Amino acid sequence: MANREHDSWLNDIKWDANGLIPAIAQDATTDQILMMAWMNKTSLQQTVETGEAVYWSRSRQKLWHKGEQSGHTQQIHSIFLDCDSDVLILKVTQQGGIACHTGRLSCFYRQLDTSQEAPQWQTVAPVLQDPETIYSNK
Amino acid sequence: MANREHDSWLNDIKWDANGLIPAIAQDATTDQILMMAWMNKTSLQQTVETGEAVYWSRSRQKLWHKGEQSGHTQQIHSIFLDCDSDVLILKVTQQGGIACHTGRLSCFYRQLDTSQEAPQWQTVAPVLQDPETIYSNK
Repeated sequence: MANREHDSWLNDIKWDANGLIPAIAQDATTDQILMMAWMNKTSLQQTVETGEAVYWSRSRQKLWHKGEQSGHTQQIHSIFLDCDSDVLILKVTQQGGIACHTGRLSCFYRQLDTSQEAPQWQTVAPVLQDPETIYSNK
Repeated sequence: MANREHDSWLNDIKWDANGLIPAIAQDATTDQILMMAWMNKTSLQQTVETGEAVYWSRSRQKLWHKGEQSGHTQQIHSIFLDCDSDVLILKVTQQGGIACHTGRLSCFYRQLDTSQEAPQWQTVAPVLQDPETIYSNK
């Protein structure tokens, strides 16, 4: 618990100037990328301890247990660290099949269309559930 | 070219305080995540214009045409933007099958082993080519 020896895996991470690291959530079965959010040391510890993704909300400046309102939690299968020790991948099961607050499976639902002279971001994935009904139990 | 109208897709992006956005490179065929690096406006423009990934090296503070030394360039298939407009995915073909400067396919080659009381990062992917031979033509 408070054993410092057990924290070396956390100290291996190169936290940024704000004490954060980007964490990419990837579907453990399909390998689709669902979202990217940020973690601080406490959120990563809680993620490992609980087996569910806990991020650090930069906008709200608080711990964010993903799905706490929507029920769209993310169960952790495995966690990977990159060569520079400054990016994480979380392989997860996405409850409800919706990671995005817009009601879509993935937050990456806009694709760059370069077929015209002026490139444009085109929405290429459907809304699976109206966000108002997702968050209505708040 | 210098037409401002044609830059609206760049202005749709929420660049961070340093004018950067994280870009996740993902294999277009297997969906394996290869690396995450950063882009500024110029590097993203060059990426779209040339069809090869050009990042912004934060350590060297210069444009970084991925593979310029190693030959391990990344051909762009498609580019996605997330709901907050602050993260990109690049779907790519990785030349040489090596994205990582350590000579591995992916930079995410360490997995968290939680089977012991003290978690540890375990290397789980092989070196495919000695980095010394990759960069010997520099």
